[in-house]
Amino acid sequence: MTIIVPEEINFDINGKFISYLKIPYSTNSSGWGSLMMPLIVIRNGKGKKILFTGGNHGDEYEGPIALRNLANELKQEDIQGQVIIVPYLNFPAVLAGRRLSPVDGLNMNRSFPGDPQGTMTMMIADFVFQHLVQRSDVVIDLHSGGSSMIFEPCVVIHHLENLQQMKETISASRSFGAPISLVVRELDSSGMLDTVVEESGKIFISTELGGGGFVSPRTLIIAENGIRSILRYFNIIPNFDKTVPETRFMETPEIGGYLMSPNEGLFQPLIELGEHVNEGQIVGLLHSLTEIDSPALEITSKIEGILVMRAGRTHVKHWDTIAVIASDFDVSVFE
Amino acid sequence: MTIIVPEEINFDINGKFISYLKIPYSTNSSGWGSLMMPLIVIRNGKGKKILFTGGNHGDEYEGPIALRNLANELKQEDIQGQVIIVPYLNFPAVLAGRRLSPVDGLNMNRSFPGDPQGTMTMMIADFVFQHLVQRSDVVIDLHSGGSSMIFEPCVVIHHLENLQQMKETISASRSFGAPISLVVRELDSSGMLDTVVEESGKIFISTELGGGGFVSPRTLIIAENGIRSILRYFNIIPNFDKTVPETRFMETPEIGGYLMSPNEGLFQPLIELGEHVNEGQIVGLLHSLTEIDSPALEITSKIEGILVMRAGRTHVKHWDTIAVIASDFDVSVFE
Amino acid sequence: MTIIVPEEINFDINGKFISYLKIPYSTNSSGWGSLMMPLIVIRNGKGKKILFTGGNHGDEYEGPIALRNLANELKQEDIQGQVIIVPYLNFPAVLAGRRLSPVDGLNMNRSFPGDPQGTMTMMIADFVFQHLVQRSDVVIDLHSGGSSMIFEPCVVIHHLENLQQMKETISASRSFGAPISLVVRELDSSGMLDTVVEESGKIFISTELGGGGFVSPRTLIIAENGIRSILRYFNIIPNFDKTVPETRFMETPEIGGYLMSPNEGLFQPLIELGEHVNEGQIVGLLHSLTEIDSPALEITSKIEGILVMRAGRTHVKHWDTIAVIASDFDVSVFE
Amino acid sequence: MTIIVPEEINFDINGKFISYLKIPYSTNSSGWGSLMMPLIVIRNGKGKKILFTGGNHGDEYEGPIALRNLANELKQEDIQGQVIIVPYLNFPAVLAGRRLSPVDGLNMNRSFPGDPQGTMTMMIADFVFQHLVQRSDVVIDLHSGGSSMIFEPCVVIHHLENLQQMKETISASRSFGAPISLVVRELDSSGMLDTVVEESGKIFISTELGGGGFVSPRTLIIAENGIRSILRYFNIIPNFDKTVPETRFMETPEIGGYLMSPNEGLFQPLIELGEHVNEGQIVGLLHSLTEIDSPALEITSKIEGILVMRAGRTHVKHWDTIAVIASDFDVSVFE
Amino acid sequence: MTIIVPEEINFDINGKFISYLKIPYSTNSSGWGSLMMPLIVIRNGKGKKILFTGGNHGDEYEGPIALRNLANELKQEDIQGQVIIVPYLNFPAVLAGRRLSPVDGLNMNRSFPGDPQGTMTMMIADFVFQHLVQRSDVVIDLHSGGSSMIFEPCVVIHHLENLQQMKETISASRSFGAPISLVVRELDSSGMLDTVVEESGKIFISTELGGGGFVSPRTLIIAENGIRSILRYFNIIPNFDKTVPETRFMETPEIGGYLMSPNEGLFQPLIELGEHVNEGQIVGLLHSLTEIDSPALEITSKIEGILVMRAGRTHVKHWDTIAVIASDFDVSVFE
Amino acid sequence: MTIIVPEEINFDINGKFISYLKIPYSTNSSGWGSLMMPLIVIRNGKGKKILFTGGNHGDEYEGPIALRNLANELKQEDIQGQVIIVPYLNFPAVLAGRRLSPVDGLNMNRSFPGDPQGTMTMMIADFVFQHLVQRSDVVIDLHSGGSSMIFEPCVVIHHLENLQQMKETISASRSFGAPISLVVRELDSSGMLDTVVEESGKIFISTELGGGGFVSPRTLIIAENGIRSILRYFNIIPNFDKTVPETRFMETPEIGGYLMSPNEGLFQPLIELGEHVNEGQIVGLLHSLTEIDSPALEITSKIEGILVMRAGRTHVKHWDTIAVIASDFDVSVFE
Repeated sequence: MTIIVPEEINFDINGKFISYLKIPYSTNSSGWGSLMMPLIVIRNGKGKKILFTGGNHGDEYEGPIALRNLANELKQEDIQGQVIIVPYLNFPAVLAGRRLSPVDGLNMNRSFPGDPQGTMTMMIADFVFQHLVQRSDVVIDLHSGGSSMIFEPCVVIHHLENLQQMKETISASRSFGAPISLVVRELDSSGMLDTVVEESGKIFISTELGGGGFVSPRTLIIAENGIRSILRYFNIIPNFDKTVPETRFMETPEIGGYLMSPNEGLFQPLIELGEHVNEGQIVGLLHSLTEIDSPALEITSKIEGILVMRAGRTHVKHWDTIAVIASDFDVSVFE
Repeated sequence: MTIIVPEEINFDINGKFISYLKIPYSTNSSGWGSLMMPLIVIRNGKGKKILFTGGNHGDEYEGPIALRNLANELKQEDIQGQVIIVPYLNFPAVLAGRRLSPVDGLNMNRSFPGDPQGTMTMMIADFVFQHLVQRSDVVIDLHSGGSSMIFEPCVVIHHLENLQQMKETISASRSFGAPISLVVRELDSSGMLDTVVEESGKIFISTELGGGGFVSPRTLIIAENGIRSILRYFNIIPNFDKTVPETRFMETPEIGGYLMSPNEGLFQPLIELGEHVNEGQIVGLLHSLTEIDSPALEITSKIEGILVMRAGRTHVKHWDTIAVIASDFDVSVFE
Repeated sequence: MTIIVPEEINFDINGKFISYLKIPYSTNSSGWGSLMMPLIVIRNGKGKKILFTGGNHGDEYEGPIALRNLANELKQEDIQGQVIIVPYLNFPAVLAGRRLSPVDGLNMNRSFPGDPQGTMTMMIADFVFQHLVQRSDVVIDLHSGGSSMIFEPCVVIHHLENLQQMKETISASRSFGAPISLVVRELDSSGMLDTVVEESGKIFISTELGGGGFVSPRTLIIAENGIRSILRYFNIIPNFDKTVPETRFMETPEIGGYLMSPNEGLFQPLIELGEHVNEGQIVGLLHSLTEIDSPALEITSKIEGILVMRAGRTHVKHWDTIAVIASDFDVSVFE
Repeated sequence: MTIIVPEEINFDINGKFISYLKIPYSTNSSGWGSLMMPLIVIRNGKGKKILFTGGNHGDEYEGPIALRNLANELKQEDIQGQVIIVPYLNFPAVLAGRRLSPVDGLNMNRSFPGDPQGTMTMMIADFVFQHLVQRSDVVIDLHSGGSSMIFEPCVVIHHLENLQQMKETISASRSFGAPISLVVRELDSSGMLDTVVEESGKIFISTELGGGGFVSPRTLIIAENGIRSILRYFNIIPNFDKTVPETRFMETPEIGGYLMSPNEGLFQPLIELGEHVNEGQIVGLLHSLTEIDSPALEITSKIEGILVMRAGRTHVKHWDTIAVIASDFDVSVFE
Repeated sequence: MTIIVPEEINFDINGKFISYLKIPYSTNSSGWGSLMMPLIVIRNGKGKKILFTGGNHGDEYEGPIALRNLANELKQEDIQGQVIIVPYLNFPAVLAGRRLSPVDGLNMNRSFPGDPQGTMTMMIADFVFQHLVQRSDVVIDLHSGGSSMIFEPCVVIHHLENLQQMKETISASRSFGAPISLVVRELDSSGMLDTVVEESGKIFISTELGGGGFVSPRTLIIAENGIRSILRYFNIIPNFDKTVPETRFMETPEIGGYLMSPNEGLFQPLIELGEHVNEGQIVGLLHSLTEIDSPALEITSKIEGILVMRAGRTHVKHWDTIAVIASDFDVSVFE
Repeated sequence: MTIIVPEEINFDINGKFISYLKIPYSTNSSGWGSLMMPLIVIRNGKGKKILFTGGNHGDEYEGPIALRNLANELKQEDIQGQVIIVPYLNFPAVLAGRRLSPVDGLNMNRSFPGDPQGTMTMMIADFVFQHLVQRSDVVIDLHSGGSSMIFEPCVVIHHLENLQQMKETISASRSFGAPISLVVRELDSSGMLDTVVEESGKIFISTELGGGGFVSPRTLIIAENGIRSILRYFNIIPNFDKTVPETRFMETPEIGGYLMSPNEGLFQPLIELGEHVNEGQIVGLLHSLTEIDSPALEITSKIEGILVMRAGRTHVKHWDTIAVIASDFDVSVFE
C-alpha cells in the first residue's frame, strides 16, 4: 500500500504547509477507510533542515503538544531553512492513547527503517525515513516515559563511533537545556529511529520529558523552550533569546542503573525524581497484593546517583523496570 | 453466597489479628475458586472503634499502601480501643488495578449498603456495612483520584443535617492535616459508603490524596501522618505527637467548580495543582487529534479559586471532568 | 445516581430549548465522566403534547435522523402545544452503533418503566417514563429493523383492550401514511415503552421503517412525512398540507408469520420486501458454509401474505428470525 | 420475557414428546433471535414423576450425553409414570462449553428459584422450577467437575433436617451405584437447584461424575447405569435388571477436606483419584512459573481419607480448590 | 505449512469434482485442527479454462451464493473446457462474516501472490495463484461492497498497458451485462489478485455487485446472469442464450470521485444509487452524535456523474469513504 | 531485539547454573518490561551434550514438571557431559497456559530456525537453535496432547533419510521406555524444532505423554523415568539403573490414522486410550447440540490398530482431530 502525500504539501518551495498524509486503512468496518496523519512543513530560504517527531510512542504527550503549539505559532518568516513537524508519528497509537500501534501491535521505535509493503507501522516508518529523515540535517524525536514510566526531564543521546558526530551531538543536546542529558549505550539499537538517523551521519537528539500518560506545565515549558533553543542553535530561528539552563550530563550504567520489579505488587517510591540516591539506599518498597502478613520487599539501589525514572503506575508486574539511576558522566573528553 | 470470616479473626477480644475473608468466586476456569481478601483487626482495652478502608476504587493507592504499612507497624499495645483495617476494599478491582470491579463491573462506592445475595461487590459492601461499619464509631475511607484524575491532597467531608455530627466531623477532619479540606454537597449520595455511615450517626471522613494511578512520597507522607493524627485525635494512639499542619476549608461550587471536556483531545494544563485561578483564566488547552489546523480550545474557569484536581491522562474524551476549582468555605459557623 | 436536567430546559414555558441531559457515567478511564444526551423541547401555547423517541435501539437510524432534522427545522411559532424530542433514546447504544447498550447490555425496549437506582438503561427508562411520557398525550417511538433485519416501512400498533384507545390509535396510525400498518399482539409485552405508554391510557405509535444499519432516501422521506402528518393530525402543526398516502392494515400471525433460520448459513432471499407470497412459496434459500455438496435448504412460507421483513445480513445463525409475512387485517370493526 | 413451550409438548397425556423451549434472545446481531432449548417428556400411565437435568454447568458432560442417549432409547412403553429430561439446563453455557452462562455471566446453580423478569439464566431457572420441578416427585441433577476439577465418580446428597426425607434420599442414592456417595453440608445453599427441590420436600440427588471438560467410557457407563438403576428403584422402568455396585458413603469435612492452592503455579498430583491419603501425606507439588530456583511447594493433606477430586488443569491460580479429601461417613443411623 | 488437495479432485481429467482443500489450523483450542475449504472443478474436453472466486472479502455475498448455485447446477456435459470455482476464497473471513481474515487480520486482496510459509491468508493466496490461476485463461473475482459500502452493480476492470489485453478485457466485461462497468486506475495495485492475474497476461474481471453485508434478488440475478454470459462469451457454456443487457462504461476520477467523511456521525444519503449527481450537488448530510445544536454537515459532489457507491452503515467514522461518483468513460478508443 | 544471557550462566565450564534469559518485552503497560525465562545448564567433564525442552506448546505439562524436578535434583557430580534444560520453551505461552504464544500468536514448533529480528517466538526459536541446539549432540523435546488432545504416552520419532541417524534414533527412543513409540512421517515438517535438529545430523526425540491440560501421576512417572533412562543411554548419568519397560513401535497411517470431527457437537468416546480397535469399529459418537431428535453420528475407524489419541474436550468443533489410530510398525529393518 502507499502513503499519499497531499497536493497541498510541497517540500521544495518557501511557505507554510499544514495538511495530512493519507494512509490507506481497510478494516472490517470500513473497507475503503483511511487515516489522515498530520504533517507540517515550513520552509524559508536557506538554512538547516530539521525534522521534529512526537508520538513515536502513542502515550507520550510532551512532544505532540509542544509540536502542535510550535506548528501553530511558527510563521514562514520566522525561520531560515526548513522545519518539518510530525506531531503524531505512530498516529494509530496516538489516536488510541497507547504505546504501540493498535493496528499491528508494533513499536514504532523498533520498526525503522520500515517497509513500504509491511504493516501500517512499517509503512509509516518507511515513509518517514525515506521522505522526511533523508531530506533533513537534524532529527529531534521527543519521547516521555509513557503510561508506565515517569522521568525527570532528560535529553537522551548515544555513544557514537564518529567523534565529530559525537561532539556535535553533545553540543546540540546541551543547547536543549533539559535538567539532565543522558549519554546512553543501547544494548540493542536495531529498529530505532535513533539508529537509522545516526547511521546516516545526521544529528539525532531524543528526550524523556516526563510520563505517566500526562503532562505538567513544568515539563511542557522544558519541551517548548528546548525546541526553540535547538532551533536557535541551528540558526533556524535566530531571534529566539531565552537563556538556556545548564544541563547535567549523566549515564545509566548497564549494571546497577536499571531496577526491575521481582514480583507483582504495589510499588511505593521513597525518593522523588531528581533526588540523590546512595549505594545501598532503599528507593522503594514492593507490597504484595495477596500476602498480607509478609513485610514489604525493599528495592535497593546498587549504585550512587540520581533517580531519573520511576514506575508510572503503583501496581507493577513481574519484571517491570521500576526505577532508573543515573550517575555523572564526563563529556569534556569530547569537547 | 456467603463471605466467610476466618477462625483466626476475633473482633471481641484483645489482640492483633491478620487474616483473610474468604469470598467464594466460581468462574469458568475455577469452579470452586475463592478470593482471599485481607482484613486486619487490632484491639486493646476500651476506646473508640475506628474502621479504615482503602481501595474502595481499585486504582487509588495512597490508602492501600498507607494502611498496609499501618497494619505492619501498629502493635496491640500501641492502641486503646479497636482499629479495623480493610486495605483493599474492592478487592477484585485492586487486583486488577481498575476503578471498578472486573467481576461485576460495579463501583463499590455506589453499592452500599450492599446485598448478601447480590454480585460480589454487593456482597462485600453488605459484609463491610453489617460487620465492620456497624461495630465502629468512626470510618475513614481513603480515596485518591484514580487513573483519570490527580488531586491536590484533600480531606473530603459532607454537609450534614445533624449539626453536632457536622461539628464533630469538621473537627476530626481538621486533625488529618491535609492541605485542603473540601466540604462537599453530593448531587446524589445514594449507594456511597459515606452515606450509610453518616446516616448511622457515625463520624465519616474521606480523602482525595493524589491520583493518576501512582503515588508520590509527598502524598504518602500526608496519608500516613493523617492516619496517625486521626488515631491520636480519637485517643486510639495517644502517644503520637507530630504537629498537624493547618488545613484550608474549601468547597467546590456545583456551578463553575467542575470543568468538563467538550470533546476528545489532548489536554494541556496551564496551571499546577494547588495554584490560584482567577475567574476567566484559562486553566488548560484542548488540542484536537484529528483537526491539525484548528487552534486549541481554551478551557476557562468560571470562578476564582484553587485548582484542586486536573485530568490524570492527557488524552481525554468527550465529557470527562478535567478540572475542579475549589473556593474558600467558612466553617466557623459550625464551630 | 441521578440524571440531571440542564437549567436551559424548561418544560413549562413557551420556547424552543435544545440541550443535554447529564447522565453520570463513572468508568475505569473516567472516574467522574458523564454522557450528555440530547433533548429538545418546543412549546407554544395550548395544544396536544407529543413525545418523539428515536434510537430506542442504537442501530436504527430513520428515527434519529428524522428527529434531528425535525429539531432543527421546527420553530416555536410553527406549533400549537408541545413537542418533546429524544433523538437518541438509548444514547450509549446509539454512540456505539449497536442495538443494546454497551454499558449494561440491556435492551432499552425491555427496561421500562425503568429504575432510578438501576443500571444506565434503567435510569434512562425511568427518566423518560417519569418526566417525558407522563407529561405527554401521545408518544411516537420510531424503530427500524436494525443491523439484523430490514423492513418494508410499517407503522406498528397493538391490540388494545380499551376500544376507544384502539380506535384513536388506528386513526392516528393511519395518519402516518406508511405503506403498511401492522396490528400486532405481543407474546410478551413486559418492559416495552409501548406497554407503559398504552397502560397509561395515552396514544402510542411505533414504526419499523427500514433497517440493515443504514437508511435510504425513500425510508427517510416516509419517516419525515409521517412525523409531520402525525403532528398535523394532532393539530400541533396545523399548516402542514402534504397528502397522506394510503396505508394497508395487516397483521403478522403468530403461527406462520415468523420464519426462523434452522441453521447457520448464507440466506439468499428470493422475494423483495413488499412483494406478495403464496402459501408454500419458497421465500429464500439457506446455503451451508461447511457442507459444499448439500443442496440449499428451502425456506417456505406457511401462509399467504406480504413479505414485510427479511434478514439484514446474509450470514445468519441458528434460530435468527429471517423473514416475516403479514396478512391483511380488517380494522373496520374498530372504526 | 417469556419462555415458550412448544405445542408439540404435552405434560399431561401419555406419549413421548421431543421438542424445544423457545427462549427469546435479542442481541446486537439478531434483534429477534431465539435459543431453542431441548426438552424431552415421556409419559405412560401412573407412577413416579422424575426430572433429570444435565448441563447445569455448561462444561460438565456425563449428564448431557447420558441424558441424550436416554432420550433416544427410552420408549413410552418402557416406563410407568413420567420422565422429563433437560439435557442442557444452562443451554447458553452448554453451547459455549463454559461453566457459566455467556449471556449474563450467571451460575445456574446459584440462580434458583429464578425470576421470569430476570436475565436468561434467571428465566430458565424460573421455568424449570415452576413448570418441571413442581410437577415431579424426584429430581436428579447430573454434575461433573467441569473444566477445572476432576472427580472420582460420586453421588452427592445433603444433610436434611427432615429425617424421613433424609432416609429416602440415602436409599435412593445407594441405588445409583456410584463408587462413592458424598453426604455434604453446604456452607451456603442459597440459589441451588438442590435447595429449592429439597425445600419442596421432594427427593433430590446430585452427582460429580468426572470432569476436566471431557468424559471417559468408564464415567459414562457409571452415569448410564446409575440413571437406569434410579429409574428402576422408583419403578419407572421395572424391567431393568443390572446389579447395582456397592457405594461407599463419605463426607468432606469443612476443615481439612478442601485444599486450596496458595499461589499460581503448576500443580503436580502425586496421588490418583480414589486412592487413600494419610494425614500429613503430600498429595501434590506446586511448581512456580517465575521462580526457577525455589523448591516446589508441598500440598499436604490435613486428614486421612480418599482423594475424590483434584484440579482439572495443571496451571492453577491463587486460591483455586485443587484437591478434596473425603472421609468415611456412617449412614446406618438414618437407616 | 501445506494446503492439501484431496484425492477426490483431479484437475486433469474430465469430470465434476466437489471437495475441500485441507488447510492445517493449529489453535489453542484445537492443536491439530483444520479448515476444510470448498473447491469445485468441472472439466469437459477442450476449451477455455476459467477460474471464479467469491468471498475474497468475507462479507461480500453475491459471489459466494451465485457460485454455490453455479456449482450445484453446472454439469460436466454442459461445458466445454474447465470451470474452477472457489466460492469462499478467504474462507476464515467468510466463516466469520468479516472482510478480513480473523486468523491473521489480513486482507486477501492485498496478499497476492502469497507465501506458502506465511500466515493462513498468505498460504491460501499462494495456493490459489500457483495452482488455480496458473492453470486458467480467465479469472473472474466477484466482489460486492461488503458491510461498509453498497454499490450499484458494476463490473470493474483496470487500465492495462497491453492494448490487446485491454481490448479483450473490455470486450469480456461488456459480456457480463452489469448496469455499469468501471475502468479503474488503482493508486496502488500491489498485492491484489487482479494484479497478479493481469501481469500473467490473463483476462481478469472483477465486480462490485451490491453490499451492506446482504444480497437482494436483483443483485443476485445480475450476478448469476453475468456469470453465465461470461461463460457463454468464452464458449464454455455455448448453449446459454439470455440477452445481455447494455453496460455503461464509466470511471471514478481520483480527484472528486471519492468522498470521505470528515468526521464521525450519522450519514443521511440524499440520492439513490445509480442516480445522476451534478457538480456541487449535496449527496448527503452528516449529523453529529454529540453536538445536537450544530447544523448537519453537507457532503457535496465535486464532479458530475452517477452515484455508484454509498456508505453501507449510517454510523460512519472519521475518514470513511462514504460515496463514490463515476463519470462516463469512452472505451471506443480500445475497440 | 536481543535475548540476553545472564552473567551467571556459563556453558563452557563445569558447574550447575540456574538463571534466566532476559527477553525484552515492551508493552502498552510496561514500556521497558522483560520476560525472565528459566534456563539450567549443568556441566561436568567430558561426555555427550544433551538439550531437554518442555513447554514447546504452553499447555503441555509433563515436560515442564519433569524438567523442573530434574533441574532440582541433578547435581554436577551426577553427570558426565552437559545437560541443558529449557523447562518452558514458549515461555509466554506457558505463563498463559495456552498452546500458542499470546504475544505474537505463533506456534513455537512452526517457528524454527527462528529470526533474531522477528517477533518474540521467532527470537526465542533463533536463540534456542543458535545457542543451545548447536552446542548439543542430542535434543529431547517433551510434548503432550495439550488442552485439546489426550495421548496414550508415546515417544515420537521421524522417518529419516540417513539410515545411520535413523538407527541411532530408534535405539535411543527405545531407551525412553514409553508404552508406544510412534514413527511418523510429517506431511509438512517446515518450522519444527524436530526438523532443524534432524537436519543438523543430531539425534532428536519427541514425545506425546498425556494431555488435556493436566498431568497424572502415571504420565509423570513415565516422563521422569524416560528422561533418566535416556540420560543413562547416553552415559550422562551412568549410575541410573531402573529397568526400561518394553516399547511398541507403531505408525499412524496418513489414510485412516486420523479421524476428524465432521461437525460441532459432544464427542462420546467408546474406547479407552491404548485399547485395540478393529477396522469398522465405532470409536465414538458425536451428539448434536442443536438437533435433539437426530441420532448421534458414529465415528468409525477405517483401520485396525490402537487408539493412541482422543479429543481432550467433549465439546468439539468442525474438523477437529478427535482420534488417532496407530498400527504396528516393524523397525527391525533398521536394526
